[in-house]
Amino acid sequence: MSFKFQINTDIKFNRNKYLLAKADKYKPEIIHKTVFPKELVKLIKDKSQLDDVGIKKSNSIEQLTTMSFAKDDSFILDMGRHCVGKFQIHIEHVGSPMDAPLTLKIRFAEMPNEFKYNSDDYNGWLSKSWMQEELIHIDTLPVDLQLSRRYSFRYVEITVVDTSPKWSVQFSRPTVIAQSSVDKLKAIRPNFDDKELEQIYQVGLNTLHECMQDVFEDGPKRDRRLWLGDLRLQALANYTSFDNTNLVKRCLYLFAAMTAKDGRISANVFTNNEYIPDDTFMYDYGLFFISTLDDLLKHEFSQEILDDLYPIAKKQWEYDQKFITSEGKVILDEDYITFVDWSQDFDKTTSAQAITIYTLKQLINLAGLAKDSEKIRYQKQLEKLESYAKNKLFDKDKGFFISGPKKEINLASQAWMVLAHVLNDKENHLLMKKSKKELFPIKGIATPYMYHHVDQALFEAGLKDDAIKLMKEYWGKMISLGADTYWEAFEPEQPNFSPYGNAMVNSFCHAWSCTPVWLLHEYLN
Amino acid sequence: MSFKFQINTDIKFNRNKYLLAKADKYKPEIIHKTVFPKELVKLIKDKSQLDDVGIKKSNSIEQLTTMSFAKDDSFILDMGRHCVGKFQIHIEHVGSPMDAPLTLKIRFAEMPNEFKYNSDDYNGWLSKSWMQEELIHIDTLPVDLQLSRRYSFRYVEITVVDTSPKWSVQFSRPTVIAQSSVDKLKAIRPNFDDKELEQIYQVGLNTLHECMQDVFEDGPKRDRRLWLGDLRLQALANYTSFDNTNLVKRCLYLFAAMTAKDGRISANVFTNNEYIPDDTFMYDYGLFFISTLDDLLKHEFSQEILDDLYPIAKKQWEYDQKFITSEGKVILDEDYITFVDWSQDFDKTTSAQAITIYTLKQLINLAGLAKDSEKIRYQKQLEKLESYAKNKLFDKDKGFFISGPKKEINLASQAWMVLAHVLNDKENHLLMKKSKKELFPIKGIATPYMYHHVDQALFEAGLKDDAIKLMKEYWGKMISLGADTYWEAFEPEQPNFSPYGNAMVNSFCHAWSCTPVWLLHEYLN
Repeated sequence: MSFKFQINTDIKFNRNKYLLAKADKYKPEIIHKTVFPKELVKLIKDKSQLDDVGIKKSNSIEQLTTMSFAKDDSFILDMGRHCVGKFQIHIEHVGSPMDAPLTLKIRFAEMPNEFKYNSDDYNGWLSKSWMQEELIHIDTLPVDLQLSRRYSFRYVEITVVDTSPKWSVQFSRPTVIAQSSVDKLKAIRPNFDDKELEQIYQVGLNTLHECMQDVFEDGPKRDRRLWLGDLRLQALANYTSFDNTNLVKRCLYLFAAMTAKDGRISANVFTNNEYIPDDTFMYDYGLFFISTLDDLLKHEFSQEILDDLYPIAKKQWEYDQKFITSEGKVILDEDYITFVDWSQDFDKTTSAQAITIYTLKQLINLAGLAKDSEKIRYQKQLEKLESYAKNKLFDKDKGFFISGPKKEINLASQAWMVLAHVLNDKENHLLMKKSKKELFPIKGIATPYMYHHVDQALFEAGLKDDAIKLMKEYWGKMISLGADTYWEAFEPEQPNFSPYGNAMVNSFCHAWSCTPVWLLHEYLN
Repeated sequence: MSFKFQINTDIKFNRNKYLLAKADKYKPEIIHKTVFPKELVKLIKDKSQLDDVGIKKSNSIEQLTTMSFAKDDSFILDMGRHCVGKFQIHIEHVGSPMDAPLTLKIRFAEMPNEFKYNSDDYNGWLSKSWMQEELIHIDTLPVDLQLSRRYSFRYVEITVVDTSPKWSVQFSRPTVIAQSSVDKLKAIRPNFDDKELEQIYQVGLNTLHECMQDVFEDGPKRDRRLWLGDLRLQALANYTSFDNTNLVKRCLYLFAAMTAKDGRISANVFTNNEYIPDDTFMYDYGLFFISTLDDLLKHEFSQEILDDLYPIAKKQWEYDQKFITSEGKVILDEDYITFVDWSQDFDKTTSAQAITIYTLKQLINLAGLAKDSEKIRYQKQLEKLESYAKNKLFDKDKGFFISGPKKEINLASQAWMVLAHVLNDKENHLLMKKSKKELFPIKGIATPYMYHHVDQALFEAGLKDDAIKLMKEYWGKMISLGADTYWEAFEPEQPNFSPYGNAMVNSFCHAWSCTPVWLLHEYLN
């Protein structure tokens, strides 16, 4: 997840040392693996690949040490897999003595099309600082160049900006020290008797693996933050694959320890240097703290965690009361937006109502576990919320949930209402069948996050074949376009579209897109 | 010095451990001084300054910490003096949490006009790697940014390439750890009763100070090598100011330890990493080993150094015999060029004859000190060389030395013949007077190195006032154009000319231009 900017520097935050100590207790040990490149590649025009950029082997990796590079020469290493880690390479000079420094430009790319763009041309709203490129001057050779920063990439392009006319350089031993808090070899790998689904599962597993670092990051290339909405989905996928519950606990404690004084939970926290809650708040993301906590305790119950975190979940719920009328209607607030999806082109009122119901049901479960007498009040509020949804938001004539003053019918509303189980199973089945008929093919949705909820709604409504078909069409399409890991954004109608105007800042390994791992376990196994 | 490329990778070199150990024995301790910036400046159009670029104070340095910088903002620090050293600055972020890395571009300049150019536009024959600019990504703030490389500069331009829209940065404590092997406060500073000359002397002293590092470097910004021809002049300027004879000894031992197997002394050696003799050889530079050794021993006699280095000097002389006919004529060789000056537009035959005579006289002195019986042979050869010069190269009708098959009359020939004292003092006086009348104003000479020899010839010929006038017109002109240190190249007829097509690779602090320090001592004190 990453979203347009909110600036709220006046907000006062709690900083609960007891909860932060628990977050530290669950800090993972990072596992390092040495990765050697597979081969040297060159870019080729390939209309079947993203942005028409494909790759082709140019040399074996053994040949690299025999090649020498002078001014403007370059080569691309293919690591053979997506890596999150640090890069190193040995460099020597050949020819006359080194009469000038060596200047290198090193670029890292998750997808080949990133190399098509020039960072100087980028003028988007996301920080240019995310470009994974370095300009490096080396005063003396030979050197074991070890770049100190962490990058997220499969491909490394090294360009010799200049040597001098008297000498050139040779490269050897390119190596990546890749990192994750989980070991891919230890993941659960189910058998689906369907090669395509197995590949879809594997790429999801790769994505999750790369995003599981010191916390669940949204994207290891860019943002690198712990987002609550993304965490919820990553945690689910994690339970069925790596099953590292400690990392989920760590993340929940981080959110819990640094809530705003008014009870709101930040949409994300920074953990790169010190722990800092972001001044960004979103209605649905705040509620997903409840959801993530309930999912965790269902997967692995802990009285200690319930005792520590239920009060935080409850406080978030109490804060949200101002947006729920006595009639059970959820009111959108401009200053406390409901995300649902990146798109701003559909009405989100009914989605917000559904998400509120979805998470209240989980809160009620938690209240039961905590033996909280408020459970009764929550149940009564749930009835009102559901009743409002059924009576005021479901248009019986049209057979769809409507949203907002213009009574808009959109896919997000139907999907979320199905997930919230406001209607009964039979009605849900009909609703998704009708959605499939009238609201498909999906248009204008660019996030795997929203596609996930639609796909889950199909499964949930008993439309397993349609869910699998959509999964193959969406996640499978990314694979056919060259994905090793799933992307932050992908709109099948315009696959080459970058939300930032330059693929160099796209995140092609993004946590919220890993969910086939969970969906396939949950609904197929 | 730096010159067009020779590539001779097949040459075999000696590597005399005994002499290298002596070079190490004289390795200087580097003196570090902390320099704080004087003020913040901005560039202004100023036709009185080099390239029409001047500077003007924009803010006091105290104001820096109160300013904050966002995307595309920049500032320029004026250190108030030329520095060779390492730069550091403290950076904090202000605003929302740091949701992206910080990217900075940092450029270092000796002269303000360097900032006018863009490194991307550079397409000259010198390596682009000399550009003093860095692109730096910083993942976490606050940071005490300490750049690991050494730069040569007075001005530092810091541009914020990007933060994010949510935060900006503040800078504080910009500091340079400047370095030299000598202490400027301990230099001899004569009184000339002439403010202009005192300033000319001071800027020369600055230049020498900055170039005296682990060896005598030609330019601390670019090349950074120990060149033999430059060493000769720096050593002379050093004796009369800092008087660090150990550094001269170190440099002579370095050249002596790594001669080519055939006896030639490299035009320069690299000392940045390991000691490496360059595969560039020049007839006159080779001979200047004799000259530099003789100058040293005249200044401070050492039997040990004479014993160690006279054989090396002698071997260089013996190698050169193939270029001297039995008649006493020096023959130019395309593969072993005589430098004299950067310009390739004048004939260098007669200059080479004069330099041969100049250095042979010094070799004879060394042979005397070494009680070498070859001295007699050398004296006989000197007679032949002088006789050839007087009878064949001096055109009595024209009153000038002529050079080459086209009997060219050029200033370099007259100046070097005066310095070689081939004619008597009265004849020399007349020759330089005539040169002044007919060959001045000087045209087509772009190096302070050649100007030095002309100026010295004026002094040597008893034309002191003319020598001072030329010094003020040439070195004084650099000062009026903004120089703190003298430049590698300066052609008064076209002051904005860069020999490289981009001022960013010009060296504005270059050893061979420091010689007013010596000239003023030698001829005025």
